[in-house]
Amino acid sequence: MTVVAVHVPSKRNLARWVGKLATLLPDWTVTSFDEAEPDNVQYVVVWRPPTGGIAEYSNLKAIVSIGAGIDHVLADSKLPKGIPIIRTVGEDLTQRMREYVALHVLRHHRDMPRQIHAQANSVWKSFVVPIASDRTVGVMGLGNLGAAVAVTLASIGFVVRGWSRSAKNISRVESYFGQDSLPAFLSQCEILVNLLPLTPATEGILNAKLFAMMPKGSCLINCARGEHLVEGDLLTALAAGNIKQATLDVFRREPLPSDHPFWQHPSITITPHVASLIDADSGGKLIAKSLLAFTSTGTCTDLTDPVRGY
Amino acid sequence: MTVVAVHVPSKRNLARWVGKLATLLPDWTVTSFDEAEPDNVQYVVVWRPPTGGIAEYSNLKAIVSIGAGIDHVLADSKLPKGIPIIRTVGEDLTQRMREYVALHVLRHHRDMPRQIHAQANSVWKSFVVPIASDRTVGVMGLGNLGAAVAVTLASIGFVVRGWSRSAKNISRVESYFGQDSLPAFLSQCEILVNLLPLTPATEGILNAKLFAMMPKGSCLINCARGEHLVEGDLLTALAAGNIKQATLDVFRREPLPSDHPFWQHPSITITPHVASLIDADSGGKLIAKSLLAFTSTGTCTDLTDPVRGY
Repeated sequence: MTVVAVHVPSKRNLARWVGKLATLLPDWTVTSFDEAEPDNVQYVVVWRPPTGGIAEYSNLKAIVSIGAGIDHVLADSKLPKGIPIIRTVGEDLTQRMREYVALHVLRHHRDMPRQIHAQANSVWKSFVVPIASDRTVGVMGLGNLGAAVAVTLASIGFVVRGWSRSAKNISRVESYFGQDSLPAFLSQCEILVNLLPLTPATEGILNAKLFAMMPKGSCLINCARGEHLVEGDLLTALAAGNIKQATLDVFRREPLPSDHPFWQHPSITITPHVASLIDADSGGKLIAKSLLAFTSTGTCTDLTDPVRGY
Repeated sequence: MTVVAVHVPSKRNLARWVGKLATLLPDWTVTSFDEAEPDNVQYVVVWRPPTGGIAEYSNLKAIVSIGAGIDHVLADSKLPKGIPIIRTVGEDLTQRMREYVALHVLRHHRDMPRQIHAQANSVWKSFVVPIASDRTVGVMGLGNLGAAVAVTLASIGFVVRGWSRSAKNISRVESYFGQDSLPAFLSQCEILVNLLPLTPATEGILNAKLFAMMPKGSCLINCARGEHLVEGDLLTALAAGNIKQATLDVFRREPLPSDHPFWQHPSITITPHVASLIDADSGGKLIAKSLLAFTSTGTCTDLTDPVRGY
C-alpha cells in the first residue's frame, strides 16, 4: 500500500486536500501528518511543512510542494538530504497568474488608485496616462509563470522586457540576463513585476538599491515571495516618491499581521496570496498525476533541481 | 484657402485642438467656431456641437466627429442634411479601449472591489473566483472597438461572446446577432461590456428587461454612451443584487453632476469618459489625415453611413 501524508497549515484546507487526493488516488492511503504511521509514508504533499516534520519519514521517496516554488520546503533546516522534490505547476495556475498580473499592471498603468480616490471625493477628473505601447513593463523571472505573464502583457500592448539568470528567447519580450544587466533592465521599468524563484541569491532583491535603479515614480508588483522584498526599503521608497504604488500578494509573514503598516498604507494594495491560488480541486489533479508518474517511472515533468533551488 | 472650424466644449481643449490642427495642416486656416467667417468654412471638427452651430456654415463639405461615434453630431436637431460625417478611429484609440476593458473586466472577474474593501478593514481574506476559462464575458457591439476588445479578452483567457446587428466571424468569439438572439446571448454573460453605437435602436438598451436576462450577480461595464443606460434601472438592479457591480465611463450628463447618486454608490466605479480618450495629439493626426484624404479624393476610410447612424 502506497501511503501519502499531507501537511497544510489550515485545518479546514487539510481536510479538503486529504479528501481530494484520496478520491484521485483510490488505491493509495492518503492521510494527514498527524495521523500517519511514519515508517509507512512514501510521499509527502506539503505547503510550509513544520521544521523536522518531513525528517520523521524514513522511507520517503519524494516530496511534493503545493506550489510552483520549493523554497518553503528547503526552509526546513532538518529536511533530509537527497529526497526528490516535485513542484506543482499547470495551466490553471499559469492562467490565474496571467490574470492577476494583467489586472494589476493595468491598474497601475491607468492610475486606477488615483481615479478611485477622485471618485471618493465626487470629483470628475481624468489623469492623462501614456498608451501601453509607450509604457515599459519589466518582468523579473522568466520561468513558466514569468514567461506566460510577459507574453500576455505584450499581447495587451505593453513594451515588455524580462530579466532572468540565463538568456531567454520569447517573442516580443526583450531579454536581459545576469546580475550585470540588472541596472540596464531596470532603467526603463515603469512597472516592475517580480516572479523570481526564492533562492539565497534572490532573497531581499527588492531593496533600496534596486528601487534607485528604476525610473522615479515607478510601480512594483510582487507576486513571488515575501522574502524577496526588504519591507522597510519599500516604505522609504514610497515616502520619497521613488516608488509611486505597490501591489503585494506575498509577505514574509502570512497571514500579514493585522497591525502591519502595509495594511493601511495609501500607496499599497494588498491581496492575500491569491495571485495563483492552488486549491485542492485544481492542485489535486496535478499532484495526483505527478505522483502516479513518479511511482511508475521514477521521475516526472515537474521534478526540481535541488541545487538550483527551483 | 481651405478653412476648418473647430468646436469642443472646454476652452482649454479648444485652444489645443486649434493649435494642433493648424500645425498639422500648415496650408489651411484652422479656427474656432466663434472666430470663423461662416461662409468660408469648408470643414468642421466637433465634439458635442451646439444646436444649430453647424447650420451656420453654408459651404460645408464635411463634418468630422472627434470620436468613434457620431451620435453627438446627429443629436443637433438643426443639423443640415446630406453633409458627409467622418468619424475618428485609429490604433491608439483602439489600444486605449482594449486596455480599459481588459482592466475593468479583470477587476470584476477577480473581485477587486471586495478585496480592496477587505484591505480597508485589515482583513486577510481570499475570495474564491473561477478561472477566466470558466467565465463568460459578453461584448455588445462588434465594430472596430468591440471586435478588438473581444479578441483581447479571449487572448487573456475568457470565454467571449459578442452581440451585434449582423453576424460576425471573429476567432474565439461566439457571434450572436439580431434582437431575437439577445436573451440567449445574455443568459451566460457574467460580465457584460457595452460598446454599441448610440442610435434610436440602442438608446436605453441597458434597462431592467436586459438586466433580468443576465445571470444573477453579473457585472456591467458601459464604455459607449450614457444614453444607452436607464440609470434608475441600474440602481434598482444593484439594490436587488441582480447586478453585483458596475463600471461606468459615460453618462447622460458629463461631467457627471457632483450630487448624482452614482458617485458614492458602493457598487459603482466611475471613470470620467477616459476609456478611449481622443486628445489633440493622438486625434489631431488621424483627423488631419482624414481631411487631406477627403479633400483630394472626395472620400476617406472613416466616412460614416448617416442612415445607419455609425
